[in-house]
Amino acid sequence: MRVRWALEEAGQPYDVRLVSFKAMKEAAHRALNPFGQIPTYEEDGLALFESGAIVLHIAQRHAGLLPDEPNARARAVMWMFATLNTVEPPILDLQTAKFAEGDKPWAAERLALVKDRIRQRLGELSIYLGDAGWLDGAFSAGDLMMVHALLRLRPSGLLDEYPNLAAYAARGEARPAYQRAFAAQLAVFTSKPPAD
Amino acid sequence: MRVRWALEEAGQPYDVRLVSFKAMKEAAHRALNPFGQIPTYEEDGLALFESGAIVLHIAQRHAGLLPDEPNARARAVMWMFATLNTVEPPILDLQTAKFAEGDKPWAAERLALVKDRIRQRLGELSIYLGDAGWLDGAFSAGDLMMVHALLRLRPSGLLDEYPNLAAYAARGEARPAYQRAFAAQLAVFTSKPPAD
Repeated sequence: MRVRWALEEAGQPYDVRLVSFKAMKEAAHRALNPFGQIPTYEEDGLALFESGAIVLHIAQRHAGLLPDEPNARARAVMWMFATLNTVEPPILDLQTAKFAEGDKPWAAERLALVKDRIRQRLGELSIYLGDAGWLDGAFSAGDLMMVHALLRLRPSGLLDEYPNLAAYAARGEARPAYQRAFAAQLAVFTSKPPAD
Repeated sequence: MRVRWALEEAGQPYDVRLVSFKAMKEAAHRALNPFGQIPTYEEDGLALFESGAIVLHIAQRHAGLLPDEPNARARAVMWMFATLNTVEPPILDLQTAKFAEGDKPWAAERLALVKDRIRQRLGELSIYLGDAGWLDGAFSAGDLMMVHALLRLRPSGLLDEYPNLAAYAARGEARPAYQRAFAAQLAVFTSKPPAD
């Protein structure tokens, strides 16, 4: 979804190759990503994995996702790292706590700890953002990453505890490029699954 | 340590301003990093946080940390993201399991789960690396990040379960720039702590 959204913001056409859960762990896919994950990205002579690296690659080569002024550009990239390294880890840990460890005797008590770690990061981000529209001036790849990470939280109800962050995420979601990417992603799930 | 190492590889002089645990959470520091963490980085007109963003900024502006060829450069940046997003999270979770949750009744059983998640990533990385010297051609900022993440694991004994990764980390550690950075970092701990 992040890569689709970035390509839509940059106005670049793309083709999608779906990978089944089984194929993701097999040698052909591991040749593209040794960790057996998606997404991967291919263009002439270049193969990449890691959604952050792919979004940054797209953002550096096309207008629309990074400011031109060098310092503002460095700060936009900083917000990509801040998403992946500081805000998103406890959000992903919520999935671990709920699903990978949901059957453990400690599940409920640990879930509360993880939610508090998420609240700490959301509280700090909420204070930083204040009533600004985006993280640092105009919409950037940093906002793209952050909005997507926050949207993962919406089903938990945690995002709505921070009205300015909920509004920020909704602002990202309302962008036409997001809407096009979301419709394309949704179409994957409403069509048949990939063959192994 | 990552930022020191990058500056040493790039041959750039720097000054260090220490921040106490108390000061890290106060308003003056939060103006540099809203999440109240270190490191932060300042040069004329620019303030950054997130070690990955700082290392990338240094690597993009000075020779020695990224290849010139655009595709190889994109792959080196990809390995920075792979470190922070895929390899390091379970390594950092080991700290959470041991310290933040070390007094919980589930600590021992969960520690085993976390160690297995680390082994999964190390096993995949070990297969990928094989007998290569660095992740993708010459030493890059991707190796700098990965070696530092792996070295965090050494006290646990997990790194030594993968001899090629242990040798890779030792190769990074042996670089003169790492040695200079380590000596400078060590000197911080052998001198007096910063005043609040």
